[in-house]
Amino acid sequence: MGKVTFGVDIGGTTVKLGLFGEDGCVLDKWEIPTDKEDKGRHILPEIAESILAKMGERGLRQEDIQGIGVGAPGAVDDEGNLTAGAVNIGWPPFNIPDALKAYINVPVMALNDANAAAFGEMWQGGGRGCHSMVLVTLGTGVGGGIIVGGRILAGATGAGGEIGHIHIEDNETEQCGCGNRGCLEQYASATGIVRLARRRLAQDDRRSLLREGELSAKSVFDAVKAGDDVAMEIAERFGDYLGKGLAAVAAVVNPEVFVIGGGVSKAGEILISYVAPCFQKYVFAPCSGTKFVLARLGNDAGIYGAAGVIQCGGHSSVQPQ
Amino acid sequence: MGKVTFGVDIGGTTVKLGLFGEDGCVLDKWEIPTDKEDKGRHILPEIAESILAKMGERGLRQEDIQGIGVGAPGAVDDEGNLTAGAVNIGWPPFNIPDALKAYINVPVMALNDANAAAFGEMWQGGGRGCHSMVLVTLGTGVGGGIIVGGRILAGATGAGGEIGHIHIEDNETEQCGCGNRGCLEQYASATGIVRLARRRLAQDDRRSLLREGELSAKSVFDAVKAGDDVAMEIAERFGDYLGKGLAAVAAVVNPEVFVIGGGVSKAGEILISYVAPCFQKYVFAPCSGTKFVLARLGNDAGIYGAAGVIQCGGHSSVQPQ
Repeated sequence: MGKVTFGVDIGGTTVKLGLFGEDGCVLDKWEIPTDKEDKGRHILPEIAESILAKMGERGLRQEDIQGIGVGAPGAVDDEGNLTAGAVNIGWPPFNIPDALKAYINVPVMALNDANAAAFGEMWQGGGRGCHSMVLVTLGTGVGGGIIVGGRILAGATGAGGEIGHIHIEDNETEQCGCGNRGCLEQYASATGIVRLARRRLAQDDRRSLLREGELSAKSVFDAVKAGDDVAMEIAERFGDYLGKGLAAVAAVVNPEVFVIGGGVSKAGEILISYVAPCFQKYVFAPCSGTKFVLARLGNDAGIYGAAGVIQCGGHSSVQPQ
Repeated sequence: MGKVTFGVDIGGTTVKLGLFGEDGCVLDKWEIPTDKEDKGRHILPEIAESILAKMGERGLRQEDIQGIGVGAPGAVDDEGNLTAGAVNIGWPPFNIPDALKAYINVPVMALNDANAAAFGEMWQGGGRGCHSMVLVTLGTGVGGGIIVGGRILAGATGAGGEIGHIHIEDNETEQCGCGNRGCLEQYASATGIVRLARRRLAQDDRRSLLREGELSAKSVFDAVKAGDDVAMEIAERFGDYLGKGLAAVAAVVNPEVFVIGGGVSKAGEILISYVAPCFQKYVFAPCSGTKFVLARLGNDAGIYGAAGVIQCGGHSSVQPQ
């Protein structure tokens, strides 16, 4: 048997772990709770313990391990330093590989969790076979992860790919979570779609399935699929905002493909049918061939990407800062 | 003496050439006219002839030459293929290094001219010492060149860094040269500033130095320096558009620095004083430390960058597609 790799994705509630074979296939995956007590100081030891237990269970020795990749919820530089800590799990700034190696002495690389997801989607998901892609994560917020030339574009301060905070609307009165007004995230995230829906429903009394039950991104796209006119108008607004934002991204990095992931993307291909035509309306012609595909790895993208940066042997980032 | 490098920048009117020492300093620079007859078929032979003449003049032999870098006015991939030709000079698609090597058998690399300028500014100009920067060229149009991790971001179809075609204004009736409406280029280029000025002057009869003589980006910034209130309003509009556009760029690639070049940048630091505060208004907070500097190499940026990609030994691009 060739060497195996562990991919770890540290989230606010659970830590996802995966064991990958040399061919990039997942052999095993599991989760442990994220222990946020004492400023998260138990998280890394518990990850190490869980990996060591899995090694014992499968009779793996240290020399069988190619390495461990770790995706963390904060900005991470090329040396694996969590440069500004990770607020969600209480972590201060520190060097993740050094800390983990104190428990298991194998090669360790760390990277930002959103970038890990992007790398995973390129390695084994919707962007497979591409050299450049942008993962667009439509969840509570709008996140992004950019790969160019097979490498993660982390950015000078770890904010590369923060496409949710592109200014897209001059006439916005409400604030985005970041403090600005008119960010893409305010219209294209799950909560943004609900805001668009509320505003549309308040405009008139037109009948709509959306006037019953709880509003959500899912209920909007379910209503679209059921042929609801008002829901379609909302989806058009969403598509216009996201298409405009992604056209800006295309003019900057000119990727081969946009991979659309996150909870909102569960709506499926219908979501792309609203975004792609609007993208064409705004895009610079030489970028008009940019493809749109759905993400394929779901919540596993992070463990794939964390393992992938180990297996691909490269740096996790093009930005050595 | 160590090996020397030639940097070549092919423009629509002249071809600029430079001879560079091992330390990256320019030893000599000169120009030849761009011979566009017969679909530009004489351009490369004339460049070769000019380089061979310079070698003769300086007693340089083939083994003294580290290589020749060529910046061309079209999209160029990593192998030096001019993928879609170069309309301005009549060139069809072909492989530039192979063609030039037929005349001088030394290492040759080719890249897009705007990307060459960006690489030059990072290597020896305003972005020196940085790993990531965006060159913003404010000329007849608005161009861009992006460097991340020390490498040029060329893009999947060579349209990386085309920041002039970010959609920035929903309420525009006139078309941009690209066919869209509301591109950054329509407000932040030399011609865009004149448009903004015309629109402002037509609004009312307020006295302004700009009502005399010919309108140009230069006359607007000269009037700003002379304390003209109407010119200041125009500069504020310009600053708001460019600040908004660059904030979008920062949210995508998060560079260390914006290097501002092109004819409009001859206005000097006052230009930055109008852009930087507007950038702060729109930028995602983690990118707020992005620096603004003026380009330093002027029209020589292209020959520097073309020589630089040879001397830095790397690929001209992070995008191997």
